[in-house]
Amino acid sequence: MSDNKVGTYKFVAEPFHVDFTGKLTMGVLGNHLLNCAGFHAADRGFGIAELNENHYTWVLSRLAIELEDMPRQYEVFNIQTWVENVYRLFTDRNFAILNKEGKYIGYARSVWAMISMETRKPADLLTLHGGSITDYICDKECPIEKPGRIKVTQQTPVAEYLTKYSDIDINGHVNSIKYIEHILDLFPIETFKEKSLKRFEMAYVAESYYGDTLSFYLEEKAENEYDIEVKKNNQEVVVRSKVIFK
Amino acid sequence: MSDNKVGTYKFVAEPFHVDFTGKLTMGVLGNHLLNCAGFHAADRGFGIAELNENHYTWVLSRLAIELEDMPRQYEVFNIQTWVENVYRLFTDRNFAILNKEGKYIGYARSVWAMISMETRKPADLLTLHGGSITDYICDKECPIEKPGRIKVTQQTPVAEYLTKYSDIDINGHVNSIKYIEHILDLFPIETFKEKSLKRFEMAYVAESYYGDTLSFYLEEKAENEYDIEVKKNNQEVVVRSKVIFK
Repeated sequence: MSDNKVGTYKFVAEPFHVDFTGKLTMGVLGNHLLNCAGFHAADRGFGIAELNENHYTWVLSRLAIELEDMPRQYEVFNIQTWVENVYRLFTDRNFAILNKEGKYIGYARSVWAMISMETRKPADLLTLHGGSITDYICDKECPIEKPGRIKVTQQTPVAEYLTKYSDIDINGHVNSIKYIEHILDLFPIETFKEKSLKRFEMAYVAESYYGDTLSFYLEEKAENEYDIEVKKNNQEVVVRSKVIFK
Repeated sequence: MSDNKVGTYKFVAEPFHVDFTGKLTMGVLGNHLLNCAGFHAADRGFGIAELNENHYTWVLSRLAIELEDMPRQYEVFNIQTWVENVYRLFTDRNFAILNKEGKYIGYARSVWAMISMETRKPADLLTLHGGSITDYICDKECPIEKPGRIKVTQQTPVAEYLTKYSDIDINGHVNSIKYIEHILDLFPIETFKEKSLKRFEMAYVAESYYGDTLSFYLEEKAENEYDIEVKKNNQEVVVRSKVIFK
């Protein structure tokens, strides 16, 4: 039973998935994490396909990734994922990233809600399949901090971006991974030459759509630590992010 | 021997790799094709890693993809690849895309050169490993036209784009797949609602780098047929592309 709680998935860092330093990009790693969440849930009977049949779906609320290293081009690496907690309206899912030698090089935490596709309202996770999701709760260690508070008071955007065809997913929303790319693109390439990403956080607050103009507000909170807020059409906050370099 | 000439690789259309219609994006398909080329070459002793040891590398010159359909979200599909011709300075590599039922839904053609990483000059493919690459030449059918002539006389760009961190690959160049995304982003989303991509061609002419401004010149050549030229810093042509919808 314990073995069945942690899912392990193998990947290779593909050539077009690494950045100019030869390391896997944060966007691609985020994509892999979300795919692993999907595989793990589907294999245990609470995946998107099963939920959709009952007009429910998973919605990602928070993601925090902390890394000592990143896989290099062509490197084989593994991602583990497991459920840490299940509450009525949220579940905490954690991840570990292991390099080719099997050494832990990073961890991630995510928070998900289940919503009704008809009303968009949150659903009760503890009644899903009679609460059987709680059978998978696992106390495996995840030695990184939980997603924290991100606060931006800056009123002048550092960049604006008009969303395009390639940003939009099957639900008609700007996809969760594209936000990661657009946020990292706020930094000059020199930053990635001199430093590496230590921690990256996303808070998904609202959806944006094709043709929305995204404005990016950036604030340096401490040395190497930046909070970013993204608004659509100069109004509603869409996502917030924290980027810590080392 | 015949079996060994064609490589077959299995994929799944991941959620963040499909567009708003639920079909695999052209950029992701292009990425998979180039990965298959890499796997196929590496398995036969003329992959990037082996070439790099001798200070040579593969350079993609042309890519043409023609499709009747695209894999849908979560669909398992296969890509086949083989070498059609080897000339002194170029080799033609073809691809077939098979849907989950094993039906051919598309084909692709690509043209590659091998260059010296020191002089950037083309190398002689017929002397590579004593010409053994020719052992893999295969006459499997590829019933789509070869990459054709792309000509744009339009002098006013329809869009400009300043290249960013996420565009740059391990060689310090804007990556081949990002051009595909930027070119398709020239079209309004309505085009992809009403039509689907029938044929997509890329001609890689020169490299662009971080901080270059790309200008996109677009010309309608016939109904549903567009030629695009991308210049860097308003001067040199970087890539040309043809997009045909149906």
